[in-house]
Amino acid sequence: MCRWIAYRGPTTALEEYVTEPAHSLISQSVHALEATASVNGDGFGLGWYDHREDPGLYREIRPAWSDENLRYLCRHLQSHLFFAHVRAATGTAITRVNCHPFACGKWLFMHNGFVGNWGRLRRQVEALIADEFYGSRIGTTDSEAIFLAMMSAGIDHPVAAAEKTLAKLAGFANRGSPADRLRVTAALSNGQDLYAFRYAVNDRANTLYFQESDNAIVIVSEPLDRDHSNWTCVPEGHVLVARAGERARMQPLFERHRQAAE
Amino acid sequence: MCRWIAYRGPTTALEEYVTEPAHSLISQSVHALEATASVNGDGFGLGWYDHREDPGLYREIRPAWSDENLRYLCRHLQSHLFFAHVRAATGTAITRVNCHPFACGKWLFMHNGFVGNWGRLRRQVEALIADEFYGSRIGTTDSEAIFLAMMSAGIDHPVAAAEKTLAKLAGFANRGSPADRLRVTAALSNGQDLYAFRYAVNDRANTLYFQESDNAIVIVSEPLDRDHSNWTCVPEGHVLVARAGERARMQPLFERHRQAAE
Amino acid sequence: MCRWIAYRGPTTALEEYVTEPAHSLISQSVHALEATASVNGDGFGLGWYDHREDPGLYREIRPAWSDENLRYLCRHLQSHLFFAHVRAATGTAITRVNCHPFACGKWLFMHNGFVGNWGRLRRQVEALIADEFYGSRIGTTDSEAIFLAMMSAGIDHPVAAAEKTLAKLAGFANRGSPADRLRVTAALSNGQDLYAFRYAVNDRANTLYFQESDNAIVIVSEPLDRDHSNWTCVPEGHVLVARAGERARMQPLFERHRQAAE
Amino acid sequence: MCRWIAYRGPTTALEEYVTEPAHSLISQSVHALEATASVNGDGFGLGWYDHREDPGLYREIRPAWSDENLRYLCRHLQSHLFFAHVRAATGTAITRVNCHPFACGKWLFMHNGFVGNWGRLRRQVEALIADEFYGSRIGTTDSEAIFLAMMSAGIDHPVAAAEKTLAKLAGFANRGSPADRLRVTAALSNGQDLYAFRYAVNDRANTLYFQESDNAIVIVSEPLDRDHSNWTCVPEGHVLVARAGERARMQPLFERHRQAAE
Repeated sequence: MCRWIAYRGPTTALEEYVTEPAHSLISQSVHALEATASVNGDGFGLGWYDHREDPGLYREIRPAWSDENLRYLCRHLQSHLFFAHVRAATGTAITRVNCHPFACGKWLFMHNGFVGNWGRLRRQVEALIADEFYGSRIGTTDSEAIFLAMMSAGIDHPVAAAEKTLAKLAGFANRGSPADRLRVTAALSNGQDLYAFRYAVNDRANTLYFQESDNAIVIVSEPLDRDHSNWTCVPEGHVLVARAGERARMQPLFERHRQAAE
Repeated sequence: MCRWIAYRGPTTALEEYVTEPAHSLISQSVHALEATASVNGDGFGLGWYDHREDPGLYREIRPAWSDENLRYLCRHLQSHLFFAHVRAATGTAITRVNCHPFACGKWLFMHNGFVGNWGRLRRQVEALIADEFYGSRIGTTDSEAIFLAMMSAGIDHPVAAAEKTLAKLAGFANRGSPADRLRVTAALSNGQDLYAFRYAVNDRANTLYFQESDNAIVIVSEPLDRDHSNWTCVPEGHVLVARAGERARMQPLFERHRQAAE
Repeated sequence: MCRWIAYRGPTTALEEYVTEPAHSLISQSVHALEATASVNGDGFGLGWYDHREDPGLYREIRPAWSDENLRYLCRHLQSHLFFAHVRAATGTAITRVNCHPFACGKWLFMHNGFVGNWGRLRRQVEALIADEFYGSRIGTTDSEAIFLAMMSAGIDHPVAAAEKTLAKLAGFANRGSPADRLRVTAALSNGQDLYAFRYAVNDRANTLYFQESDNAIVIVSEPLDRDHSNWTCVPEGHVLVARAGERARMQPLFERHRQAAE
Repeated sequence: MCRWIAYRGPTTALEEYVTEPAHSLISQSVHALEATASVNGDGFGLGWYDHREDPGLYREIRPAWSDENLRYLCRHLQSHLFFAHVRAATGTAITRVNCHPFACGKWLFMHNGFVGNWGRLRRQVEALIADEFYGSRIGTTDSEAIFLAMMSAGIDHPVAAAEKTLAKLAGFANRGSPADRLRVTAALSNGQDLYAFRYAVNDRANTLYFQESDNAIVIVSEPLDRDHSNWTCVPEGHVLVARAGERARMQPLFERHRQAAE
């Protein structure tokens, strides 16, 4: 199981959240608190926004805890919105291009979860990627394919694009016999707004939490400390919408569909 | 442009052909003789057969000339049939899974060439891969896709499978406007027999040479020494068939089709 | 804390001991049984003897569990005497040259332990390395320095050379104020004979076990399975001597010195 | 032979000098202009100053031209003073810790050159490193040893510290029989001031050039373009002193010694 953190707030060095000893993502990756998988040693990635519209990326396949470049970068890079991710692979190759986050234009995406029976569903999911985004498929993970499917589904309306994609994935999973499992706990940003999804089909969803203050929001796959009372849990089947300049709000996925159908 | 060598003969350490100073594949990769690209520093790979039916693989993305593991392996590994390949990437990611050779079951494949306009043709080529082999697509290169398309086209008849695949590729390339280029200079083996293809569409084919003695054959993308008189050139549009226990022979590709059509 | 295994016996593929699922060194490195350190993800190494007098080496800094090259090598390499090691670094850099085993001429060495206060003692230990072996110091670990000190102390008599070196190290450690700690649980071979040392000063020694049958011996830093009754524990302050063609025997370190002094 | 560039001036993204197509350090490393060695593919490094006193470091052993992380970093990192270096190793291991630049406290150092007969002189050079800096010797290169010897010689007076170190090195080299060669073309900075040295003993010195404008200075081992008239050559045996807020000036090494001796 992967772990990730998304931050938006005052411009800060990344180290406080990513590499500093206590309660950082790295210390988590060594001593897992909540997850069942014991080690997240299958690669690491940072994505960050700064003076450019397009994000920066740093992805590496050696474990985060032994990467001296990462420590330097987290002390020196400053950002108002960044993603960090430690990977526990679920079958696809350990390569940099398979590490999260994924970038496409100004968008960043990262994921904890899986498409069950990826062997059976891969082609169907890849077929959701529009030709204009297929050249951006430089790796082979289910996560990158989900991201590019969202890009293809009209990313300018991120929640709708995600819902459209998740509905397709759910349909694919349910067509299996027995039905396949699907877990998507993901973060998405355009450099201004943050979206985080918690969804599952035929399975329990992976966890999703956040912490919001007056000028900052931190969203995580698992709390950075053991005290869960510091963190708000996003319920299954919900999206957390944190638009720039607005308070974050949780809303059920597919709500508008249901409303429209009523 | 990539470089490669295929060897079959008495069991030998790989170093004589791969890593030893003069005229080895590595020294070639540092000082290119014939190729236009000056450096082959985008990864390296070995595939070899031994006591098992399935081949071994060693692929690395650091340059061959600085890889101490490679030097040890080439001194200690012994094989009667091996492939070695240095990569000069043509656009896809520098990852181990994108390095040649590629293995699938008992088959090995490596390639020097490209599918022109891979962005446009990628999906069509990937669609040639049968479902049973799509799980073996762990990288993103045109070369791996060509190999798996051949596997899908009935690899038990390797020349026919290659012809079928190359004909499809040629069709895709010719449908472009302007027509796209295609170059395939590739080696294929099942651990016993060796096949090498030299083919191009709308372009000149990359070179292909071989050297045969009573009990050994060496096939190369470029001669290992400057004296071309030591090497037999395989003409464009031909396949070199070197079955175990038989003399190698060159035959035109698609000959049987032509014969059948006459 | 590192983990290692040394094998001598009938020529075999390495996978049974190194990479196969249950009770292999790799599965150990993911789920530690006895050790306090939870993860051994700081690099990996193989050393093996075959038709050459000098050993082969394969060392890699990505974790063993995600290294596809390692899986291929362990299925295809065959050896009558090999070492395998997973590293949990104690401060020195994560580089291939800092991974165990270390080779020098026909000798192989690997280690689980540390020289306490390496910053203070490093120069003194490095000064034990003879000029003729100082060029072989290509890394910066305490372990490599101990090995080269043994080489310099007359490696043709391995137990005496080790005793001489360990006595020097103990002297250095005891000169600290407070005294420094030292732990050496190491294996050494010339391709024929196997030696394993378990020693500590101002500290408890790391564990050392072995299993011997008619024609094979396996020596490990920790048992490969939970059933310790299958394994003989080597007591602290002892060396296990397993010469080719002889039964293994445990003898106290410095015995001859004590005998000579009596 | 290595290549390097040092920049001080208005805060800028690194890409213009390091990764952009024409005349950048990377394009140089692929198509060498002046150097005799054809390829600089043995690792790469960046060092840069920003809001912190201590520099950031990014060092990698894959070739610069295939490192996607480097491309992202050079587009997103901004600095008023940075070093970039491509390595062509002269015998020591290809590891990140052996890549330039080297950092120690607030100081950065990088080098093109070598200590001839490093096997013979290594211990003598390492003995120049004070105990307080010996813990910073995390690699094994002659370059890092020279830097730490300068640190030990009183780095607060950088030119004097360099002269003291170079004089020692020259003494060591001249004691060989035949005398050994020494080449040092190096850059040094504390985040404010820039120093560049061009020195050799028993050999010709490697080249050193610079370009100065009203508010920026670029110092290089080789000109970034073929038009040498754009660049001022620093003569052999000279140091270029570019203190913050002052025009750069070239001065002979050991001048004060000579003056004092007259």
